Amino acid sequence: MLSQTAEYALRAVVTLATGRPDPRTAQDIAVESRVPLDYLSKVLNSLARAGIVSGQRGRGGGFQSVRPPAELTVLQVVNAVDPIQRIRTCPLGLKQHGEHLCPLHRKLDDAMLGVEEAFGATTIESLVGKSFCEGSRCDVAA
Amino acid sequence: MLSQTAEYALRAVVTLATGRPDPRTAQDIAVESRVPLDYLSKVLNSLARAGIVSGQRGRGGGFQSVRPPAELTVLQVVNAVDPIQRIRTCPLGLKQHGEHLCPLHRKLDDAMLGVEEAFGATTIESLVGKSFCEGSRCDVAA
Repeated sequence: MLSQTAEYALRAVVTLATGRPDPRTAQDIAVESRVPLDYLSKVLNSLARAGIVSGQRGRGGGFQSVRPPAELTVLQVVNAVDPIQRIRTCPLGLKQHGEHLCPLHRKLDDAMLGVEEAFGATTIESLVGKSFCEGSRCDVAA
Repeated sequence: MLSQTAEYALRAVVTLATGRPDPRTAQDIAVESRVPLDYLSKVLNSLARAGIVSGQRGRGGGFQSVRPPAELTVLQVVNAVDPIQRIRTCPLGLKQHGEHLCPLHRKLDDAMLGVEEAFGATTIESLVGKSFCEGSRCDVAA
């Protein structure tokens, strides 16, 4: 149910939050996060527009996290590229519903709220370090 | 995060579970559920293949629910047309992960599990009766 774009944005942010805080090229991030470079470039631009990463062109340039991983949540990253769609008004367009939802859409919106709360309570920091584990660190990821 | 197809399937099933159990034409269901007829026809065919509705051609024919609404869950309907994608193996294709997930994908899968559990615990019956409420019933839906 999570879009490919949101998944790739999360991989990019986790990659940037892992290791040294130096700028990293899109190519570097693409290799580590295993995201196609073209797609990743678009995602990084969206993250830059949302103030989550910053990009610097030229020699020594690249992308960096702007916010500390402890202050950045999964929800903020997802909402920067492909916002979770809450159901605010009747999708059937029934005027008499006004701002109320029928039981079906109330239930569906409750599920979205659950996802929103779970993602909002998860910092990027909590995902870092043992994220895309390699070799000996794999047992940590289990 | 719920697809249009899943949303439409739920509306169709709730519509069929509301009112008399006689067969209803796709046109009828389309009007009540406010789903475009072409799209609805495809969704109804998927639901028929999954054994959730049955369709009968010809005079007096139409679509009917196969299972009692008390025994049919939102999860079963959603999974019949656009299954919730759980994360079973590492999406990065890291062989060393085997069947384990890194913290990011574990967290994302936890969220999908939460949705799955919420939908699995919701019967269609619990959504019926005051679903696409009209006029005086609108206050009930609040």
